[in-house]
Amino acid sequence: MDLESQQSLPHSPFTHPIQCIVKLGGAAITCKNELEMINHHILREVSQQLRHAMISPSHKPPGMDWSKRHGESEICCNPDEFRDDSIFHCTPFIVVHGAGSFGHFQASKSGVHKGQLDKPIVKGGFVATRISVTTLNLEIVRALAREGIPSIGMSPFSCGWFTKEKHISSGDLSSVAKAIDSGFTPVLHGDAVFDEIQGCSILSGDVIISHLAAYSKPKYVVFLTDVYGVYDRPPTEPDAILLKEIAVGEDGSWSVVNPKLQNSIELTVAAHDTTGGMETKISEAAMIAKLGIDVYIVKAATSHSLRALSGDLRSSIPDDWLGTVVRSSR
Amino acid sequence: MDLESQQSLPHSPFTHPIQCIVKLGGAAITCKNELEMINHHILREVSQQLRHAMISPSHKPPGMDWSKRHGESEICCNPDEFRDDSIFHCTPFIVVHGAGSFGHFQASKSGVHKGQLDKPIVKGGFVATRISVTTLNLEIVRALAREGIPSIGMSPFSCGWFTKEKHISSGDLSSVAKAIDSGFTPVLHGDAVFDEIQGCSILSGDVIISHLAAYSKPKYVVFLTDVYGVYDRPPTEPDAILLKEIAVGEDGSWSVVNPKLQNSIELTVAAHDTTGGMETKISEAAMIAKLGIDVYIVKAATSHSLRALSGDLRSSIPDDWLGTVVRSSR
Repeated sequence: MDLESQQSLPHSPFTHPIQCIVKLGGAAITCKNELEMINHHILREVSQQLRHAMISPSHKPPGMDWSKRHGESEICCNPDEFRDDSIFHCTPFIVVHGAGSFGHFQASKSGVHKGQLDKPIVKGGFVATRISVTTLNLEIVRALAREGIPSIGMSPFSCGWFTKEKHISSGDLSSVAKAIDSGFTPVLHGDAVFDEIQGCSILSGDVIISHLAAYSKPKYVVFLTDVYGVYDRPPTEPDAILLKEIAVGEDGSWSVVNPKLQNSIELTVAAHDTTGGMETKISEAAMIAKLGIDVYIVKAATSHSLRALSGDLRSSIPDDWLGTVVRSSR
Repeated sequence: MDLESQQSLPHSPFTHPIQCIVKLGGAAITCKNELEMINHHILREVSQQLRHAMISPSHKPPGMDWSKRHGESEICCNPDEFRDDSIFHCTPFIVVHGAGSFGHFQASKSGVHKGQLDKPIVKGGFVATRISVTTLNLEIVRALAREGIPSIGMSPFSCGWFTKEKHISSGDLSSVAKAIDSGFTPVLHGDAVFDEIQGCSILSGDVIISHLAAYSKPKYVVFLTDVYGVYDRPPTEPDAILLKEIAVGEDGSWSVVNPKLQNSIELTVAAHDTTGGMETKISEAAMIAKLGIDVYIVKAATSHSLRALSGDLRSSIPDDWLGTVVRSSR
């Protein structure tokens, strides 16, 4: 299903307006070159910024991860902290995260993204990939819950989503909408799913965001990454220029409007990234922008990401904001 | 939805015959009185017995949990081990587990089972309960995958199931059936879910099993518990008698046919069990037996559970088998 046809679909299950869909990029929240290692510092900062953006910044609500802490025998819950209703108003956000160093190795080694589920190695890789990505999902749900965000993990596989040539061909959003209606924050993730043609596939977090955006029409979308935004060349190169504004035409094509560039730009895709790298991200961002939804691509856990998450950039982009905004040229 | 109406429902999504639905009782696989503690020894034994029952006993397939092991930097996967197709034939089983010392404390403390999701403490408890039960689900999926069982975690909440007065009012099984069709072993669990009337509820593993059994019509159902079966009184009492056979009438009423008892029997419900104890279990077992499906209630990780899981009891129950069979009197 492409976004063109989704735009005209009347059957959105969302009854509450969604403020923001936020992507926690795998590269930002995990240690990219170390297998299955969460970047706890960044994840904690990101969770705090989300709490500030979603819940009254002056009050920290009590934590909702009551799991046993190391060395204790009781759950961490004091019912008295839950008496004040006022601190529980939570702006509707949907969180989607990538895999980073979770899942990618398992998927690459077995070729889950290429299908052929009847091969034993692919079947094993499918199981191993799902174990890895759901492990990460659980840790992210817990980090958000510790900040008082009522986070609920929802795996695309369990939601019954499947793909057809990497696009979502069945992605019922009624469970996600019901969670929003009940005041929860759904936390979805890139996942191994069934594919109508090739048997199985990897559904990337970026494709999930496009799907969610088309149906839920959020006010804005934020991609949190490990660099300041989109650059004209690999950001590790000394002369790399941050692209501050990308305009998207009605046909989905995009061009850099700020800064003015002399040469056409070059984009890189990390070798172990089975879901495509920056090029996929810009394409997906362009598809969202085409719907009239501004997309901010920004470095996680910085003052710039906090401004993006809080919706401060919607009227105008301050000169001192570092990041990339992708929006419709209309 | 009661089982009577399910019996006449033609819309089962299952196309493959299901051999067995197995319940891993929370009391068997966790340390019941210690918060969030898995009984790793029992879980490993149970996983090995399931592998024997599901996959050719003479060949141990390679593990499918490739997560990073302590002190290692690489994933545990040798693609060469996946060359031999013959060891990957896996008899269709569905696994459902209870919560034991995961989830129950969180649910009890907040009253999630009593609804009122608009109360902050209940919303917090809903989040905390889901974190706890999905933590256990992930560990069980991993334990099964390490034995080479292609296990896939599926949360009832994520599958979009919800309840009405503790019964499943919406429980689409197409995702479970699709996982079975693709050769996977779905692993479901007792979960916090939305309830049509009271807002939220706890959906117990036993109720899930009844629902699955009505639609998938397995050859038999096995409940793995921490005692040898159902007794006429609390099994800790010295004179407790193991009920070896319970017959279920067409109206769902049940009676003990072996051994012959003089007095009516007494059943206990553990105080912290928010989903009901042995009485719920027998009622649910009776509902399944009424469909013509034999139910074995047996102590986990014993020679008796291996015989039950392997289907050895289907023709006749040997005298030396310890456990309770619940079956239709027809």
